[in-house]
Amino acid sequence: MTLNLKNLLNPKVKMSKMGEFQELQPIEGLELSAVSADLYGDGRDDLTLFYFKEGANFAAVYTTSKVTSACINWNLKIKRHFVKALMVNTKNANTFTGIKGAQGLKEIAQTLSKQLTLKSSQTPKGVSEVVKITDLLFASTGVIGEDFPHLKIKNRIPELVKKLKSEQNKFVWFKAASAIMTTDTRPKVAYEECKMGNKLIKISGIAKGSGMIAPNMATMLSFIFTDANIPSVFLKAILKKVTLTTFNSITVDSDMSTNDMVAIFSTGKAKNSKIYNVLDPKLQDFEKALHKLCLNLAKQIVVDGEGAKKFITIKVIGGRSASMAKNIGFSVANSPLFKTAIGGEDPNWGRIAMAVGKSGENIVANKMQITIGNHLVAEQGKVSKNYNEKDLKEYMKWDSIDVEVNLNLGNASHTVYTCDFTNDYIDINADYRN
Amino acid sequence: MTLNLKNLLNPKVKMSKMGEFQELQPIEGLELSAVSADLYGDGRDDLTLFYFKEGANFAAVYTTSKVTSACINWNLKIKRHFVKALMVNTKNANTFTGIKGAQGLKEIAQTLSKQLTLKSSQTPKGVSEVVKITDLLFASTGVIGEDFPHLKIKNRIPELVKKLKSEQNKFVWFKAASAIMTTDTRPKVAYEECKMGNKLIKISGIAKGSGMIAPNMATMLSFIFTDANIPSVFLKAILKKVTLTTFNSITVDSDMSTNDMVAIFSTGKAKNSKIYNVLDPKLQDFEKALHKLCLNLAKQIVVDGEGAKKFITIKVIGGRSASMAKNIGFSVANSPLFKTAIGGEDPNWGRIAMAVGKSGENIVANKMQITIGNHLVAEQGKVSKNYNEKDLKEYMKWDSIDVEVNLNLGNASHTVYTCDFTNDYIDINADYRN
Repeated sequence: MTLNLKNLLNPKVKMSKMGEFQELQPIEGLELSAVSADLYGDGRDDLTLFYFKEGANFAAVYTTSKVTSACINWNLKIKRHFVKALMVNTKNANTFTGIKGAQGLKEIAQTLSKQLTLKSSQTPKGVSEVVKITDLLFASTGVIGEDFPHLKIKNRIPELVKKLKSEQNKFVWFKAASAIMTTDTRPKVAYEECKMGNKLIKISGIAKGSGMIAPNMATMLSFIFTDANIPSVFLKAILKKVTLTTFNSITVDSDMSTNDMVAIFSTGKAKNSKIYNVLDPKLQDFEKALHKLCLNLAKQIVVDGEGAKKFITIKVIGGRSASMAKNIGFSVANSPLFKTAIGGEDPNWGRIAMAVGKSGENIVANKMQITIGNHLVAEQGKVSKNYNEKDLKEYMKWDSIDVEVNLNLGNASHTVYTCDFTNDYIDINADYRN
Repeated sequence: MTLNLKNLLNPKVKMSKMGEFQELQPIEGLELSAVSADLYGDGRDDLTLFYFKEGANFAAVYTTSKVTSACINWNLKIKRHFVKALMVNTKNANTFTGIKGAQGLKEIAQTLSKQLTLKSSQTPKGVSEVVKITDLLFASTGVIGEDFPHLKIKNRIPELVKKLKSEQNKFVWFKAASAIMTTDTRPKVAYEECKMGNKLIKISGIAKGSGMIAPNMATMLSFIFTDANIPSVFLKAILKKVTLTTFNSITVDSDMSTNDMVAIFSTGKAKNSKIYNVLDPKLQDFEKALHKLCLNLAKQIVVDGEGAKKFITIKVIGGRSASMAKNIGFSVANSPLFKTAIGGEDPNWGRIAMAVGKSGENIVANKMQITIGNHLVAEQGKVSKNYNEKDLKEYMKWDSIDVEVNLNLGNASHTVYTCDFTNDYIDINADYRN
């Protein structure tokens, strides 16, 4: 990883701004496994399976790109909201792979459904249950446009199914979170719990993503599992709301992926009382916990952004509307000139003013206040009276940089998270496919 | 400069795609000078004056940023379309400099008007004419938010005026074009001529710009001078039209400047017959010549883009509308992942598909054809049958890379010009202010 973990212990780094690493708890009703289909040619795990023996409610949000992976297209066709398994491969995005890519995925689904049906007949109870291909979800991530290696994947499915285990200690979770990585330098995991009625609810989530991060609606890959019993329709409403201020508020490089997907699965094993209404107070606690978990994962993705050495929080306040604040936040967060200046530890706040100006939003330059850390750097259309370059330069050395833009036009706000732009980003992406 | 000029002679580089270097011709009615106000502290020229003794019609297009320089604000207040002079300073953008910046500019204008009035009284004819501050235009470029060094500039005005010369050999033009540079590595000049009736019309133009290049309406600094006699209202119409497909079709880093300005001045000394109608055929030849000149300058800016090693032409055809084609062109041209792949000479066309997909335009992935050079790389939603990575890798070594995206949805097209994204861009911008 490029961001030094040791720095997280540096008192000058605001830990609360960074993603936290937590030990995940097992989710009853879930089994998982990860194997290598040798897609990278070096034996690393690249195939992961999440299996819900008794099924799970699910909800997902997907990329809004007009160029989408065969797996996204597959998932969008699944109209039911109760599934049996999710399989994830890395290395190959199965995007722009034509009919062959879609056909390959279908063969994989057929093999997986057979193997899972077989497995279900091998339970002590001997109750065989057919797992249909429409019970299955898929996610892929990796290079776009290369032939989808469906045979390599298909051949490993028996082993993948055989290795399924309900045991979920931290090593099992890390193995799964590692198997879905591409250019990520570390697995991303998060855990939260809450109460629903008198039942303790567990939520365990993993994510991957490092470049091509500029989500819209959904982002990268993140899979979240809970033992709560929540109908899919409510899961969907909560997930959409939560992603707005978490996964959809981060950017690494302004490039939106063709394979973005965030999915949540609820096994119902916590046996909380049934929920009939989206306004049920029990859901509020769950939403709060889920928001915390998603924000944690989203921040971990930014911290691990390709080449990132600094974590940047851009808070836009005083906007006329939340969308105005969000647009301005992203205009700053996606500005290469702003991001390179932060990388260079140069408090070049003029580039923040430039990026606000180019956003297309109707701001009033003289009203805007720009604050870096606790230092007010610009107001009334000019540099602040108390501007002290030396203090600011000292602050710029921190690993986590806070920028606040107060538009002083209204009460709306939005916070966006990003990272700096460094030579390492260029090096990683100049020849990514080799 | 980072793009090796020698490569322009390499047969594998399509010279026609690059900006051409031409010897500029003198424009009658124009005098110019450049001096150092020591704004950089190293004695380089940083102050340039263009003076029209008998005035000139002018038209200009400016940045659409909501954060604008004091000089842009000044120019926008000049409601007349007949001016006497344009003064340009580099190093300091006079943006976000508050009332002090605007006041400093006014003092400069007052000094300049006095000095030019004085000069006009020293002509052999002895006819003194008052140059008013509303006869003056200004342009600034450089760091945003630092105190505007108006005294340093003001003190050099007498010398600047004294050095005005109507002589305009190539050294004089190169001196002026060099004096307006910031991170540019070479001056940008272009020359065209045309006929209006039986009169030969000369057009000489210079430009600067290297980073913060993502124009909207106008871009960076470019000043164009002609001896044609064209009313300002027609100059404006032609300039707006021409910038759409030239200066407004280039991008280096997606960051729009607070100081962008393209201005054209017509001295009328060619004495072509008066033009009463924008449809006058004489104007068409002029527009054609002006377009050629602006495209040449725009390409020179891209070639000299910060850290650029490759010139990239992205032609989007088969669009439902020109705006659709333009949005998709810029979505590709501004994608850091696409630009780093080109820099790495990696024909990673999947990133072109990704960038088209994220544009927000309603494309049909299966209809899209992507061509790099003469190589069709993707069609029918997958890699092309004739795709040959080896040939393509060879092509990627060229200095000038052509990408064509055929949407196959309609007849509209747009071409966008950009450069690759390299470590040098990061290095230049990580600590630009020092």
